Amino acid sequence: MPEHQATYRILYRDIDSMGVLYYGRYLALFEMGRVEWLRTEGCRYRDLEQEQQIILPVRHAECDYRTPLKYDDIALIHTWIEAWTGTTLKFSHRIECAETGRICALGTVELACVAKSSHRPTRLPEILNEVLMRVVPQKRLRKRLKQK
Amino acid sequence: MPEHQATYRILYRDIDSMGVLYYGRYLALFEMGRVEWLRTEGCRYRDLEQEQQIILPVRHAECDYRTPLKYDDIALIHTWIEAWTGTTLKFSHRIECAETGRICALGTVELACVAKSSHRPTRLPEILNEVLMRVVPQKRLRKRLKQK
Amino acid sequence: MPEHQATYRILYRDIDSMGVLYYGRYLALFEMGRVEWLRTEGCRYRDLEQEQQIILPVRHAECDYRTPLKYDDIALIHTWIEAWTGTTLKFSHRIECAETGRICALGTVELACVAKSSHRPTRLPEILNEVLMRVVPQKRLRKRLKQK
Amino acid sequence: MPEHQATYRILYRDIDSMGVLYYGRYLALFEMGRVEWLRTEGCRYRDLEQEQQIILPVRHAECDYRTPLKYDDIALIHTWIEAWTGTTLKFSHRIECAETGRICALGTVELACVAKSSHRPTRLPEILNEVLMRVVPQKRLRKRLKQK
Repeated sequence: MPEHQATYRILYRDIDSMGVLYYGRYLALFEMGRVEWLRTEGCRYRDLEQEQQIILPVRHAECDYRTPLKYDDIALIHTWIEAWTGTTLKFSHRIECAETGRICALGTVELACVAKSSHRPTRLPEILNEVLMRVVPQKRLRKRLKQK
Repeated sequence: MPEHQATYRILYRDIDSMGVLYYGRYLALFEMGRVEWLRTEGCRYRDLEQEQQIILPVRHAECDYRTPLKYDDIALIHTWIEAWTGTTLKFSHRIECAETGRICALGTVELACVAKSSHRPTRLPEILNEVLMRVVPQKRLRKRLKQK
Repeated sequence: MPEHQATYRILYRDIDSMGVLYYGRYLALFEMGRVEWLRTEGCRYRDLEQEQQIILPVRHAECDYRTPLKYDDIALIHTWIEAWTGTTLKFSHRIECAETGRICALGTVELACVAKSSHRPTRLPEILNEVLMRVVPQKRLRKRLKQK
Repeated sequence: MPEHQATYRILYRDIDSMGVLYYGRYLALFEMGRVEWLRTEGCRYRDLEQEQQIILPVRHAECDYRTPLKYDDIALIHTWIEAWTGTTLKFSHRIECAETGRICALGTVELACVAKSSHRPTRLPEILNEVLMRVVPQKRLRKRLKQK
């Protein structure tokens, strides 16, 4: 399963009172990873919203924190598809420190596909389906999501 | 000229790598001050957008930083009108630390009134004009804004 | 089990491109809830750091997103202790919209107790232990944490 | 005077309720520009703090907002030295939208040099002085700063 990588250098503003990357900020790194994953696969999120008239709100997110990221560190954000169904999508992320190579955080984010006008659940647009069929062809990994 | 006060307790997430409130975060405190100023004067910003169909984008902001705010400090955000014209509005803010009473920052934020549909400059809505006439009646303080 | 409540009014800056509270921002609301929970129980987090020389870094966080919070909404942040051991602490949070009463998000945050100097795991300080014994006396809820 | 450029792609989380980059967020882009300016000139800010034992807190910041940045836009952050003295430093920034080439914001940020231990003003470290003498050799531009 192809995995993608985005990078982000930690700024002064990202640090918290403990001197490390704030725990909520990891979810912004996950967002960065997702958006770049889609772009690399030929599917710009902005276009999904504007041309396909759908949005992908987050339904569930979680994160395990391993070793902290510090000021000026470069975060490597690895992203891959964990599971998907006709109307949902689950990304996994692994964040590493570029300098030390240590794993800093592991997380997953589940998105639902929703029509922009009605805010009701709807099927993933064809352009996104095609990407998923190509990238995760061995069958939709529904099990994990169904268990919830 | 009536002055209003909002409060905000500094969170872990607001702190930067120097152990003090991040310099960009003061502009969010100013926002908090503006919104509460309007609410106290009977003019909810959300209603201005939804009922009057205008928005008030920021045209200029500046801030002098005096003494830092630290984690768990309570910021007192004093807000007053510095100047206004038919289509613009300038707020001043003074942020103090509740515990020490020291001035932490002084700033101004200039807003323009813009129609939500056309994004073109438009006159301040009547409901906001009335507030300004009541609060700063001695004459519109256009001078300061014109100099720019 | 006593439950505490903090409030926060959603600012312009908290909103994302979908027009709702950004998903990562909920973790800052959880922080707000934790800090106020501790304060109400007589245990200021700043003092834990400065006097007890410990920090409480987050080990795991998760959040279920139900209905979105919008600009100017007041978030009610309900917080309670889900479980604790001699060296860890797990908070639960439920965020509601004050106006509609609807549940917006449910989440948990697990913290570990770490010595400030060595950054090694250490026992929860006595002052915090006493609070937990008083608030969740029926026995330490270790089970849930051990399963992980 | 050499000018440097950093880039940043606008995320969902950066957007405010008006659908554009939040006005306080520009100061984080300025930070990004400053840090990269220093790095390009061979002077890593993290080293200044750790090896030279100084910090550079912001004394004054201001920003003119011209045209908004939107979700997924790439911001080009141009940065140059506006002025400096033995103990202060003033950066200028111009932010453009990569796609349209339009100027989005113009701003300046003044930093003071402060000893890490005493928090008292101190001279810029030699390594930074050398950079400034090389980059802005025609004489220290004290005038602008003195006027304040």
